[in-house]
Amino acid sequence: MEKLVRKNIESLVAYKVDAPQYDIVVNANESPFDFPMQLKRKFCDDICNTDLNRYPEACFPELLAELTGYTGVPQEGIICGSGSDELIAMINQAFVDPGDVVVSHTPSFAMYDIWATISNAKHIMVDDLPGHIPDVDGLIAAACDTQAKILYICNPNNPTGYIFDQDDIIKMLDAVPSLVVLDEAYIEFFGESNVDLLAKYPRLLILRTLSKAFGLAGIRCGYALGNKDVIDILYKVKGPYNLNVLTQKLAVIALKNRTEILRNLEILKAERLKAIAVLEALPGITVFPSGSNFIYFETTKAEAIFEALLKKNILIKRFAESQSNPGSIRFSMGKPQENQKILEIIKEVVYNEA
Amino acid sequence: MEKLVRKNIESLVAYKVDAPQYDIVVNANESPFDFPMQLKRKFCDDICNTDLNRYPEACFPELLAELTGYTGVPQEGIICGSGSDELIAMINQAFVDPGDVVVSHTPSFAMYDIWATISNAKHIMVDDLPGHIPDVDGLIAAACDTQAKILYICNPNNPTGYIFDQDDIIKMLDAVPSLVVLDEAYIEFFGESNVDLLAKYPRLLILRTLSKAFGLAGIRCGYALGNKDVIDILYKVKGPYNLNVLTQKLAVIALKNRTEILRNLEILKAERLKAIAVLEALPGITVFPSGSNFIYFETTKAEAIFEALLKKNILIKRFAESQSNPGSIRFSMGKPQENQKILEIIKEVVYNEA
Repeated sequence: MEKLVRKNIESLVAYKVDAPQYDIVVNANESPFDFPMQLKRKFCDDICNTDLNRYPEACFPELLAELTGYTGVPQEGIICGSGSDELIAMINQAFVDPGDVVVSHTPSFAMYDIWATISNAKHIMVDDLPGHIPDVDGLIAAACDTQAKILYICNPNNPTGYIFDQDDIIKMLDAVPSLVVLDEAYIEFFGESNVDLLAKYPRLLILRTLSKAFGLAGIRCGYALGNKDVIDILYKVKGPYNLNVLTQKLAVIALKNRTEILRNLEILKAERLKAIAVLEALPGITVFPSGSNFIYFETTKAEAIFEALLKKNILIKRFAESQSNPGSIRFSMGKPQENQKILEIIKEVVYNEA
Repeated sequence: MEKLVRKNIESLVAYKVDAPQYDIVVNANESPFDFPMQLKRKFCDDICNTDLNRYPEACFPELLAELTGYTGVPQEGIICGSGSDELIAMINQAFVDPGDVVVSHTPSFAMYDIWATISNAKHIMVDDLPGHIPDVDGLIAAACDTQAKILYICNPNNPTGYIFDQDDIIKMLDAVPSLVVLDEAYIEFFGESNVDLLAKYPRLLILRTLSKAFGLAGIRCGYALGNKDVIDILYKVKGPYNLNVLTQKLAVIALKNRTEILRNLEILKAERLKAIAVLEALPGITVFPSGSNFIYFETTKAEAIFEALLKKNILIKRFAESQSNPGSIRFSMGKPQENQKILEIIKEVVYNEA
């Protein structure tokens, strides 16, 4: 069997996680708020009137209409996938040959690297400058020197929460020869999309999702916004029926009711402000500004904090120490009482161990 | 933009089909029977009690348990995907490097070739012998001579309905050095799976789906059965959350209630028998034996039949003429009255044009 397997995928580790059996789960940047019950009931009515024996719409026309209403991008400039994950897969299948270069800032979203490995591409990860400020000039140099196929920009960045200035994004778009994939998975928590740049930049592709601000990680609905030329290329590698009918129906309901659903943003943004203030007051913790629904901080006590929370049945995300990282933690905003509990436990660890 | 796109995908044509707006749709091998209403209601109850804001189970434990109950294959030997399409994608990502060879008999399922193109592989398509009997010796020679990574066997075959003898499958497994992908998408309509061969053949991988016999094309749930070694390799390239929670929940309900759902098989198999008898009695039509839910026949009047049905708002699948094909048609079994209507229109065309 070893003879048959591709050498480049040997290093990949299967993602086999147990179901989270914790009281509080804030490790995966999910929303703490479930989809409203009255909208679930609307979905159930729709499903009772849907022929499940038929293949889903290949080009999701109802969903595209709603996404156009939400983003302002015409339908010919939108393609949907099973989460951003599938869109990143499509981008690689359409643009990245073995040996090609893709560039990203680091730390950032893990799937860019997993897909570079599957594509047998060379992934240049440009380290952030001090303060977790992405190295814009370094990214430009890396992409230009190598004629990179893809430059990934995650904005706001996962896991650091960093928000790029639009001027920096324009600088990169003007300079690099690459397809610039701007991952706006968390953009609603910041509020200012760069979707207006699509009018000027044909090589810009923006990734979005219903997993975060819309609180629908379970249904796997991502979408990409771009110019027709790029979207048409992605359609060539899209599976004919990649988005099942259940997800399509539920996503349409979510988008139609977005005013109601996105009200949660204000709660989560207020929680983020409060939590950052608490953490900034703690000794030995470096908190970074966040435009997202999570907070990222560095501390030599990351392991102790992680373990103390785990003992209370709370799951956060810890990143291992490295040369440039004393240890760090990312946790997304839960419900207000949940955040309060988490912050109290962090405080205890910091002061008990001080 | 052209400079950035991979050369091998330029020839691919985006699958952008309109929603079928026909009275009778029998072109996509779907079941004509919708999922039972009382089971849809059970699904709705489940969804009302499911946190849609959480990522779905990465390894679908409930679904694996049901699939083990249905197939007899242990859970470590099963992986699920968004239809067989995603499983074929994973197989390519895990096993097929650019320049590698994949082999299939032809005509067969179109996705084998689409993925060979995306993988930049060489696809050797071995023509059927007369009577649409796959050329087993030719397949063995092609796979051995080229040290092919994959040999696809579609059983029953789409579109011809051909059923391979188990002896022929064993002959191929014994002879070729390849991963043998046995596509059993339609196996329930024949009844005799080759799943027992997994015990002896570590390089065998079987593809299945809930799209056909289970009548759930809309939810996109496929699964692969194999030995742990092969399945573990596929897990390496599987997206972390590739199967959304809605599909997982509905698939579990379908499998738990399989006795009820699979009762439709008897109706469809009886319809197939009746339809074959009618078609065999018509002049100028060559009907092929079918182990599936569809019938394949060759006739120089394929275009006239297609157009006559379309005029009555009925959609079937027509394959264009070629050197070895005078024109052919595939249509899946609809409900009894639907099949009767289709057969009457075919009869009219055959006799009016005779």
